[in-house]
Amino acid sequence: MTSLTLDPSGQFLTLTIGGEALRFHAIWLRDNAGDPETRAAGNGQRLIALRDIPADTKIDQAALDGEQLNVSFAPEGKTVGYDLSWLAAHAYDRPAPAARGWTAPEIETWDADLMDAVPCGDFNALSHGGAALTDWLGAVTRYGFGKITNGPVEDGALFRVVDLFGFIRETNYGRKFEVRTQVNPSNLAFTGLGLQAHTDNPYRDPVPTLQVLYCLESTAAGGENMVVDGFAAAQRLRAENEQYFNVLADHCAKFEYSGEAGVCLTSRRPMIELAPDGELVGVRFNNRSLAAVTDVPFDQMATYYAAYRRLGEIIDDASMEVSFRLNPGEAFIVDNTRVLHARKAYSGAGTRWFQGCYADKDGLRSTYDALRRDSALEAAQ
Amino acid sequence: MTSLTLDPSGQFLTLTIGGEALRFHAIWLRDNAGDPETRAAGNGQRLIALRDIPADTKIDQAALDGEQLNVSFAPEGKTVGYDLSWLAAHAYDRPAPAARGWTAPEIETWDADLMDAVPCGDFNALSHGGAALTDWLGAVTRYGFGKITNGPVEDGALFRVVDLFGFIRETNYGRKFEVRTQVNPSNLAFTGLGLQAHTDNPYRDPVPTLQVLYCLESTAAGGENMVVDGFAAAQRLRAENEQYFNVLADHCAKFEYSGEAGVCLTSRRPMIELAPDGELVGVRFNNRSLAAVTDVPFDQMATYYAAYRRLGEIIDDASMEVSFRLNPGEAFIVDNTRVLHARKAYSGAGTRWFQGCYADKDGLRSTYDALRRDSALEAAQ
Repeated sequence: MTSLTLDPSGQFLTLTIGGEALRFHAIWLRDNAGDPETRAAGNGQRLIALRDIPADTKIDQAALDGEQLNVSFAPEGKTVGYDLSWLAAHAYDRPAPAARGWTAPEIETWDADLMDAVPCGDFNALSHGGAALTDWLGAVTRYGFGKITNGPVEDGALFRVVDLFGFIRETNYGRKFEVRTQVNPSNLAFTGLGLQAHTDNPYRDPVPTLQVLYCLESTAAGGENMVVDGFAAAQRLRAENEQYFNVLADHCAKFEYSGEAGVCLTSRRPMIELAPDGELVGVRFNNRSLAAVTDVPFDQMATYYAAYRRLGEIIDDASMEVSFRLNPGEAFIVDNTRVLHARKAYSGAGTRWFQGCYADKDGLRSTYDALRRDSALEAAQ
Repeated sequence: MTSLTLDPSGQFLTLTIGGEALRFHAIWLRDNAGDPETRAAGNGQRLIALRDIPADTKIDQAALDGEQLNVSFAPEGKTVGYDLSWLAAHAYDRPAPAARGWTAPEIETWDADLMDAVPCGDFNALSHGGAALTDWLGAVTRYGFGKITNGPVEDGALFRVVDLFGFIRETNYGRKFEVRTQVNPSNLAFTGLGLQAHTDNPYRDPVPTLQVLYCLESTAAGGENMVVDGFAAAQRLRAENEQYFNVLADHCAKFEYSGEAGVCLTSRRPMIELAPDGELVGVRFNNRSLAAVTDVPFDQMATYYAAYRRLGEIIDDASMEVSFRLNPGEAFIVDNTRVLHARKAYSGAGTRWFQGCYADKDGLRSTYDALRRDSALEAAQ
């Protein structure tokens, strides 16, 4: 049962839906009107600016009509209908998040227990789109990484992975880069030992938000890929020591890479990035490219380093890690704003050839959401 | 005169340089050591992780030696030298910024007064690199936009602008998009009127951080391009009403575009984006793609809308605006995280053909900083 009351001021109305009282302001309702003079029917873009809506807009009348709410606005004398289901889905009369470090509802954090259920898609099935692609993109969205199997074993095949959902982010490393090592046993100590899990290119702003690593040759023993959920690590840090979490979220680190001619990349961003309301939106962690941190006050620096050390220990904890071995024609993708990756040491003779590239999350999320929208429309028809 | 004291705890030392006392922690000094076991001589990347440095690291001994500070660390028994000039440049023993909304030192905010000094580069001069390119990239960094003149009049010429400093950000709109309108006087009212200055693609995360708009035909009267410094607008909002600034910085807006098949782009980011320490790092403003804002609590929503309205009024204020007309072979670039742009109405018959593309700031800043570094190295030789 839905009921409606209009505040005498005309500034807001209250809808009571399923026992929950939801207030909506006059100006919010007017700005979010869906009539064809306010929103383009074709592309859904708003046709007017806020300056076109009178500042003294009030609700003159409001009435329920089945599953619709009709609202008349003064001084415009304009009446607009709203679906009650749309209003319920977009209600804002709710308490703000209390604690920092929460994650979006479409995200699920994980630890080593995910090893038995690594999200994986078959390249050929994914190439046909539909449910297989939707499911895989959903898993990548949820877990921040995913594997692909049965792909072609050919130079540049990784571009066909990105073609599934979006676009390459080209950088000074090229549209793709080679991770091709002729394993030399005398140098074994240097190939993997001491390579801590990290996010790529934190010295770039914006960072590349996705990375694809694609296996073309792998006859060397070892060399497994490993991933750690940076959001899970940050939340564990917070659970252990809120001060540690806060000091890393409240101060900017600095990152730098200038290891080749013509390149001098620097950034100033926190290791743990929060939205203004505390949503965990990014992790940057890379010991190799951390520059001198100069934006932490003296009286916070010892705590900052203790927190950075503890975050590293959590990231190094085997209970956080998921590892897998890629064979030729297999690849994985990581959300580089969230999931850290590393490569384990080689342990034998042979070759290992990977290609890597960067892409961005906006394309992946857009493709996923459009597939779900289209699927819901089909189901409704 | 530089003097040095070591705290008896061994936790920090104090350098007094030019009358300023600067404290440095043992762990910070050790982590930022530049010796070849800590940092790769070639690319400058750190070879060790924090886990390789003992948690109980202390300063055992410290001594000045000319322009160098030598520090011995326990328990490693390792001695490292630091240039005093490097330490002074990276000192962190300074008060944290007091007010929100400050901008980086390399940035200069502006208003309509900049009309007489629009940053401009000659395409041919820029193509030769060197001082002309350095100066232009510096101006774009400082002001967040810049013009180019004397470029080729040919399809795709805008890619040659991006080649000067970085890489295209390809999106669902392609590597470039056409802004080609056969002006139809009967539709004049719709071509420019009501098009408010905006940032592009706020529904994308990360947003494209640079945009290039390149003129290939322009025989129609009118159609001037207009830019507004979003950082100046945000700072003016703060000066007028701190509560307005805060409500836009402390809550996420939502943006959406789903106007074509296979595309459903959404983002949740604030209109005014600050770093954790209050640095102004981004502005998102676009009435056409603002979705229903649902992350502002009920008791803040009226203030939020009042603040959004006032920010729009400031952006619309002619005293904030710089406008210029582009002729074929001319282009402009904007920092899309900071500078809003708009196109004025056409006022006659004729054609107008622009091409647009996106790119990212990391490449531009890297090229600029590398040019300055190389130039400084040359000057020193």
